[in-house]
Amino acid sequence: MAENKSWVLMVTAQTPTNIAVIKYWGKRDENLILPINDSISVTLDPAHLCTTTTVAVSPSFTQDRMWLNGKEISLSGGRYQSCLREIRSRATDVEDEKKGIRITKEDWQNLHLHIASYNNFPTAAGLASSAAGLACLVFSLAKLMNVKEDNSQLSAIARQGSGSACRSLFGGFVKWIMGKDESGSDSIAVQLADEKHWDELVILIAVVSSRQKETSSTSGMRETVETSPLVLHRAKEVVPKRIIEMEEAIQNRDFPAFARLSCSDSNQFHAVCLDTSPPIFYMNDTSHRIISCVEKWNRSEGTPQVAYTFDAGPNAVMIARNRKTAALLLQRLLFHFPPQSDVDINSYIVGDKSILQDAGIHDLKDVEALPPPPEIKDSIQTQNFKGDVSYFICTRPGRGPVLLTEDSQALLNPDTGLPK
Amino acid sequence: MAENKSWVLMVTAQTPTNIAVIKYWGKRDENLILPINDSISVTLDPAHLCTTTTVAVSPSFTQDRMWLNGKEISLSGGRYQSCLREIRSRATDVEDEKKGIRITKEDWQNLHLHIASYNNFPTAAGLASSAAGLACLVFSLAKLMNVKEDNSQLSAIARQGSGSACRSLFGGFVKWIMGKDESGSDSIAVQLADEKHWDELVILIAVVSSRQKETSSTSGMRETVETSPLVLHRAKEVVPKRIIEMEEAIQNRDFPAFARLSCSDSNQFHAVCLDTSPPIFYMNDTSHRIISCVEKWNRSEGTPQVAYTFDAGPNAVMIARNRKTAALLLQRLLFHFPPQSDVDINSYIVGDKSILQDAGIHDLKDVEALPPPPEIKDSIQTQNFKGDVSYFICTRPGRGPVLLTEDSQALLNPDTGLPK
Repeated sequence: MAENKSWVLMVTAQTPTNIAVIKYWGKRDENLILPINDSISVTLDPAHLCTTTTVAVSPSFTQDRMWLNGKEISLSGGRYQSCLREIRSRATDVEDEKKGIRITKEDWQNLHLHIASYNNFPTAAGLASSAAGLACLVFSLAKLMNVKEDNSQLSAIARQGSGSACRSLFGGFVKWIMGKDESGSDSIAVQLADEKHWDELVILIAVVSSRQKETSSTSGMRETVETSPLVLHRAKEVVPKRIIEMEEAIQNRDFPAFARLSCSDSNQFHAVCLDTSPPIFYMNDTSHRIISCVEKWNRSEGTPQVAYTFDAGPNAVMIARNRKTAALLLQRLLFHFPPQSDVDINSYIVGDKSILQDAGIHDLKDVEALPPPPEIKDSIQTQNFKGDVSYFICTRPGRGPVLLTEDSQALLNPDTGLPK
Repeated sequence: MAENKSWVLMVTAQTPTNIAVIKYWGKRDENLILPINDSISVTLDPAHLCTTTTVAVSPSFTQDRMWLNGKEISLSGGRYQSCLREIRSRATDVEDEKKGIRITKEDWQNLHLHIASYNNFPTAAGLASSAAGLACLVFSLAKLMNVKEDNSQLSAIARQGSGSACRSLFGGFVKWIMGKDESGSDSIAVQLADEKHWDELVILIAVVSSRQKETSSTSGMRETVETSPLVLHRAKEVVPKRIIEMEEAIQNRDFPAFARLSCSDSNQFHAVCLDTSPPIFYMNDTSHRIISCVEKWNRSEGTPQVAYTFDAGPNAVMIARNRKTAALLLQRLLFHFPPQSDVDINSYIVGDKSILQDAGIHDLKDVEALPPPPEIKDSIQTQNFKGDVSYFICTRPGRGPVLLTEDSQALLNPDTGLPK
């Protein structure tokens, strides 16, 4: 190691979040985070939803430290520690001739790290920020420490930070194989298809206002496994068939099968939550209304136009078969869930705002002028629920982790190793 | 048969409604209404929730006619027709010497009936009015036609009108045995214990306001059986054990077991509804909040104070272990769900209003003065949801069907056989 104590070596990476379409719910090993069934996810475009993480090493650092969205947080949690330990154990020699830095495999055990992480979306909105965050931590540390393992092998480390994080190591369509080994070495993520394979899909997320305090997914899934008489039947008998069918649907870009499986599996996940003692409710009346709206439309069209899926919260993630259906979906959603009158439409629809043009929406007046969707026959269903959706995000399937090489993109100061 | 065409022979009966604590959801035979699992219910006190039915026969009647709550309705539905056919086929000779009436077994095939039925609670409130109604129809016709079958055998007829109606042929605690025979002859209700066996229990029903149009239970359970991958596992693996445990809990007046089983089975029924394609939601945010309130209290007491169960709608049926806990429950419910300010407390709590005294509530001011329940630590949970409950009904386990012999209690005019 160089004697000069002033150097700081940094890596910055960006990692996407992901949404499961065949759900992970329940662990067979709490410490290693080994699931009771395979799961499949779609990676979301990091342009709209991602974590950026800068990791730095310097002989001047006296302890491992981490900042999340600018605020220092503790790294003492078991899950962070697992990831740091696993990554450090795979570190190899690093040499930066330009800076005159040489770190040996053994040095990594004694060097401290600074980590700064930033989500480009609200952390508390229930949008799988921990998945993107832990994946980005592992990915960026692996690059910093010259870890030779591939992304699937890294996914087994990210998995120990947050189960669903393992699926954020790839873009496109990803399967988390539950594995059989007690060590967890075969419980890894693999890419089923990249984001270009099925690039027609458009994703609309409704961030739903909630007055409920939610059960964390960690304790929720533990309680489900301990108390639900249905969850093991789901894991052993139902999910394996759905995994095969979902892989086929993705391979064949078979939207009706993709939608049927996504919706059924989301609903079954929430069913086993309800079958838990005490029951866990993640969806609320707004979630239910969004489902009814989509189901009614799909039914009236004869074939599914939109899939929906809900994670451990009330937010709806809707996947439209193409841009045209996404625009029609947005019209329906805005009809039922218009913004409050003091809200600018441009802050009500975020992400890929071009969907607004496709839907013919330029301002609030256009929203107010929306006619009831033709599939609605009953006047009771033309009610609107202003304020029940906080905002919408329009996005698409996206790429996996990437390194950001511009200095300006780093979150840590290259001289001090402290947040900029 | 007497030559004189002017006579009218009448019978009036009163039949309770019932609430399942191990749920019936799913038929193996749609026509005969044969279920996929046993179920167990508590009969509710007819003083607060019941159907009164008068059935009349006269040679002057030209067709079968029925009035429900004063309005003539059609009897052409298959379910009414099944009940009428089955009852007529079991009719025997009837003689009323005083009136000089003699009807032979064969005459019943040609004589027409007038039926008037009245619910002492709102029909549309989702309080199992069809169970009480069909049970009362079958019971009163059986008495009119001198049918010799006992109530269990009559239950197999009522079952063909509305599945859960079979359980309204008995008071107290009732099991509907699914049976094995294809004819349905062994799919009958039996009494597990009468209402005096466990007379401490107090039942509070929250009639929940709903903006949703609900799926009928008939089509709902058909869709669940056709599409839910979990429902058969429930019927075959989960319910049989719960039935044994629930019978024991009732026999031993073991409230903690009774509550645990009731709550779990209600939640599992709603779970399989959610596992249906498209999903069925009967509970809404208000239902969820009531569950959270009860679960939190039960947990804080260390042992269950209250059981809850929800049928095919958002209304909560809560069973308190005794009057004291019922009063404490009412205080909690009124804290979270106070009446609108223009509502009289006496129309907000109906049924056995003496619970108000027990809870120390005399007027709206007492409601406003209620402190947050001590188990609530979090200020977010002290919100109130005024208007989300329409009203409460306080009742208890009650008796089975009875004949009403006072002329004044008949719903049909004894001379004309038309509604009074």
